[in-house]
Amino acid sequence: MKTLLKNVSLRGRIVDVLIEGNKFKQISENITESADIILDESGKAIEPAFYNTHTHISMTLLKGLGDDKELFDWLNEDIWPREAKMTPEDIYYASKFAILEMIKGGTVFCNDMYQYSEETMRAIDEMGIRGVVSKPEIDIGCSKEELEEKKQKVLDFVEFKNINEERIIKGMSCHSVYTLSDEFLQFYSDIAKKHNMYIHIHACETKHEVEECIKKNGCTPIEFLEKFGLLTEKTILAHCVHLSDNDIEIIKRHNTKIAHCPVSNFKLKSGLMAFQKLHDSGVTVTLGTDGSASNNSLGMLEEMKVCALNAKTQANSSKAGNVYDIYKTATVNGANAFGIDAGVIEEGKIADFVLYDLNHYLLCPNYNLVSNIVYSAQNDCITDVFCDGKQIMCDRKVENEGQIIEDFRKIVEKFKTIS
Amino acid sequence: MKTLLKNVSLRGRIVDVLIEGNKFKQISENITESADIILDESGKAIEPAFYNTHTHISMTLLKGLGDDKELFDWLNEDIWPREAKMTPEDIYYASKFAILEMIKGGTVFCNDMYQYSEETMRAIDEMGIRGVVSKPEIDIGCSKEELEEKKQKVLDFVEFKNINEERIIKGMSCHSVYTLSDEFLQFYSDIAKKHNMYIHIHACETKHEVEECIKKNGCTPIEFLEKFGLLTEKTILAHCVHLSDNDIEIIKRHNTKIAHCPVSNFKLKSGLMAFQKLHDSGVTVTLGTDGSASNNSLGMLEEMKVCALNAKTQANSSKAGNVYDIYKTATVNGANAFGIDAGVIEEGKIADFVLYDLNHYLLCPNYNLVSNIVYSAQNDCITDVFCDGKQIMCDRKVENEGQIIEDFRKIVEKFKTIS
Repeated sequence: MKTLLKNVSLRGRIVDVLIEGNKFKQISENITESADIILDESGKAIEPAFYNTHTHISMTLLKGLGDDKELFDWLNEDIWPREAKMTPEDIYYASKFAILEMIKGGTVFCNDMYQYSEETMRAIDEMGIRGVVSKPEIDIGCSKEELEEKKQKVLDFVEFKNINEERIIKGMSCHSVYTLSDEFLQFYSDIAKKHNMYIHIHACETKHEVEECIKKNGCTPIEFLEKFGLLTEKTILAHCVHLSDNDIEIIKRHNTKIAHCPVSNFKLKSGLMAFQKLHDSGVTVTLGTDGSASNNSLGMLEEMKVCALNAKTQANSSKAGNVYDIYKTATVNGANAFGIDAGVIEEGKIADFVLYDLNHYLLCPNYNLVSNIVYSAQNDCITDVFCDGKQIMCDRKVENEGQIIEDFRKIVEKFKTIS
Repeated sequence: MKTLLKNVSLRGRIVDVLIEGNKFKQISENITESADIILDESGKAIEPAFYNTHTHISMTLLKGLGDDKELFDWLNEDIWPREAKMTPEDIYYASKFAILEMIKGGTVFCNDMYQYSEETMRAIDEMGIRGVVSKPEIDIGCSKEELEEKKQKVLDFVEFKNINEERIIKGMSCHSVYTLSDEFLQFYSDIAKKHNMYIHIHACETKHEVEECIKKNGCTPIEFLEKFGLLTEKTILAHCVHLSDNDIEIIKRHNTKIAHCPVSNFKLKSGLMAFQKLHDSGVTVTLGTDGSASNNSLGMLEEMKVCALNAKTQANSSKAGNVYDIYKTATVNGANAFGIDAGVIEEGKIADFVLYDLNHYLLCPNYNLVSNIVYSAQNDCITDVFCDGKQIMCDRKVENEGQIIEDFRKIVEKFKTIS
């Protein structure tokens, strides 16, 4: 299968782009090779798609509930009672809807952690994007028997047959140091090692978390995770707002990746993350939106802008968080963190990409397209999205989007109240 | 002239809305009165439009230049050489283009400060929005003769015939305490008082500004402005990031208004503004984007979200910056600050409003429309914009938008380089 894009702008140069299978085969002027699909993309710019490295996508079901409450009131009054009502079917429809939002914003990947994750895998498969999907089990306050049950659930998920090995990877949700016992942390570590899995952990999100860990364990969450062998090059740590210099050294030594979530960190007043310091230290920083209940969006364009705003204010320097570094966190850094050889538009790379409408009012003037994407663009500047060489949005239309919205709205009804 | 909107959603209730002249005449179910224009707005929600209270709209010409430079390098290398090249014609076309962006984002008003402001007034008139427009003159480093020339320019602007007294007001740009001599500050104050004008001032944007003012004048910028009689109920102070408790008392005593610009404050690392404290003190806080060279957007939806993020993190409280208070800063507070009896959808109020597409994917689920507008909406959720009772955007189309973009692109060419 070959797709040929004609007359597309690549950083100001007009080129043709030939995609064969799931890769860029040739990028040059006037490609004359035949193709199954030929598209004239005049007036559009080709750029990498986005990789959202920390999500709970089905929480879109809970978007806009209890925005302005303290954490415990929010969880207790708004979130937990509704999460208890969720069925696998709800997760399936919510995932499809959330993925529709992601595609509309140019995102082709999520590193997702939530309940009924088999349903999220099904939705990812059908929508044509990529994902690392994991299922969190927590054992805080559990009995010995309950912990054994939870371990079995983890093992069941490891055994669960992946429906699409090309685009979906089963990962390991190791929720956090404050929700898992030492025994469960070691279990997670052993299973992840045995199956060579990605490990998805919330770490150092709040000052309170770090202080409590030091009080209880005599070390920081990062130091604690290291003891269990949970810091690997396939580990992604979400948030990392509160890190010591030693924590940064440890993260760097293990080539562990960070999923920075600036909007969520602001909204939940977790603090300003030291983006520039981490970047300068050589740690791989990627970008995530967190769930829509604490954002309230899955949009990576906005996340990049808030990432820049956080970086400059945190470092007290206009030079911090420059647009090129920020852009990499949302694209190539996220892709590479999960072994996806994409995130740049180059021959031989995997063809995950988007097209921008250069005639869009938000992209004028066009002195610097990367600056416009980071600071000015909104979802509707993106006209087309390709994942793994296949087109999944065409002129802002996603297949079946009307039905996906309608199905989602039906399941939303029962979550309006907590009863 | 009467316009009747049928079947529109007003906070969940389906109503008809009758507009006569520039006001809401009747809002109720099943209005049967005849009208010149009858529109079926099923599936849309009616909400207030936005009032952007601190702008330099023509700076859209310079969007995306030198994002990551220190202030002085940015001004010296990117901004000042290009501003020196600007002609009245450039300002006219840039203003029209910037207003197009504002309308697409639901904004019907700007409190604008920039050179060749007569041209911005012409653009505002033609595009059908509202504005308070002022023209800054600064006398830092000027000779006595130069100051007299600048005073004459201020007087000339005061005498300049306003082309549309219904929607446009000439204001007084009193740039800042650090760019104006005592003599010029007093002159501005006297002229503003004589002509009962709105006064637009940058104040307490950076810590440095406050420290320098204290060093030079023995008091804060707010205390200093008060001495010249520049704090009135028609004064709008942009930024106000660094205020003392006494400053807040003074601002409150004079019923002076604040234009909070959170995105610009983050991007230029000016600091976190105490939104909740100011709100609780009873001071009127309104919302502004600043110019697109330091944002890089004129979008009020995004500005509201960043306003909430700033408020929660600054106050270290999830309850700070609640969606209803934030929404008011961007709507009714901004309107009322400039004597516009709008910003709420009620009979008798001026008919400035927008319609949201309730079927838009970003507005689902719709547990709380205000939360969705503040946290989740993007420009393309807004389908229609009305200002002063007249429709200025219809199904996302603004009259002549293709031509406006084309004209803008032509003038952009000469600003690509500084030579």
